[in-house]
Amino acid sequence: MTDENLIRLTPIGTIHSPHEAAKGTPIQPTYATDCEGQVIVDPRYEEALADLEGFDHIWLIYLLDRAGAFRPRIVPYRDVVEHGLFATRSPCRPNPVGLSVVRLTGREGNVLSVSGIDILDNTPLIDIKPYVPEFDVRPDSKAGWLDERRSERTEADGRFHEVD
Amino acid sequence: MTDENLIRLTPIGTIHSPHEAAKGTPIQPTYATDCEGQVIVDPRYEEALADLEGFDHIWLIYLLDRAGAFRPRIVPYRDVVEHGLFATRSPCRPNPVGLSVVRLTGREGNVLSVSGIDILDNTPLIDIKPYVPEFDVRPDSKAGWLDERRSERTEADGRFHEVD
Repeated sequence: MTDENLIRLTPIGTIHSPHEAAKGTPIQPTYATDCEGQVIVDPRYEEALADLEGFDHIWLIYLLDRAGAFRPRIVPYRDVVEHGLFATRSPCRPNPVGLSVVRLTGREGNVLSVSGIDILDNTPLIDIKPYVPEFDVRPDSKAGWLDERRSERTEADGRFHEVD
Repeated sequence: MTDENLIRLTPIGTIHSPHEAAKGTPIQPTYATDCEGQVIVDPRYEEALADLEGFDHIWLIYLLDRAGAFRPRIVPYRDVVEHGLFATRSPCRPNPVGLSVVRLTGREGNVLSVSGIDILDNTPLIDIKPYVPEFDVRPDSKAGWLDERRSERTEADGRFHEVD
């Protein structure tokens, strides 16, 4: 890939959460229902948030800014053997972009209150999309190695992060 | 935001589909079940695709490289009145990043066969994540204005794209 293919994005806000370090952070929103956070969107985008409050859940797309370097195979939190990185939700990705569905509990102007947050405090926000069951739900989808659940771990340790 | 906050990503591959132009392209995978495509991942990441074939669906995160400029309010395909951009899945986003769940029908090395593709041909790929119902399904989530379905449109026109 040449430099002309470089994708340049600018954060549109910051995600705040109780999670200061990866260790102990829930590995997915599913295990973070009690965790509340705030999404502070840049005020210049406040108008673009209109009507978001009608949605129970939203997708947050964000920069995994404290993830370790890319590794092609890793032992994920929910297993005890290695899998290809793209078959996992591990943060050590070539492009460290995270995806989480969180519950939207309120909006005041450019500030969103959310719960079920599995994201580190002060994470740069890339995009917000409404969660739409018609578009996003595939209830009976096979989930490969994850369907076997060889580990019941629900909190992160330091294995995928540079600083902990 | 200062330049030091700039997020630099490099495409990890290219998405191929039958959709040459936005006009006529299904607006979501839900309306594209017959559309087949290929995801050509950069060969240097082939090892990281190991075990992905165990998943029925995958998330594709990609650059909406032909989307028009950001607009804070737009009339989405599924309605006849304006909504805030972030309350829609329109491509005219501050960071033009797309998110689609597609069915994974096969893998040969670094080439993925997929169906249910609502993505333009030759789209730069940012990330692949496995679809995990335990993490991603929120079946009864309210979907704001989309629950009212004031338009039954399922294909795009040219309203959100620069070239058509």
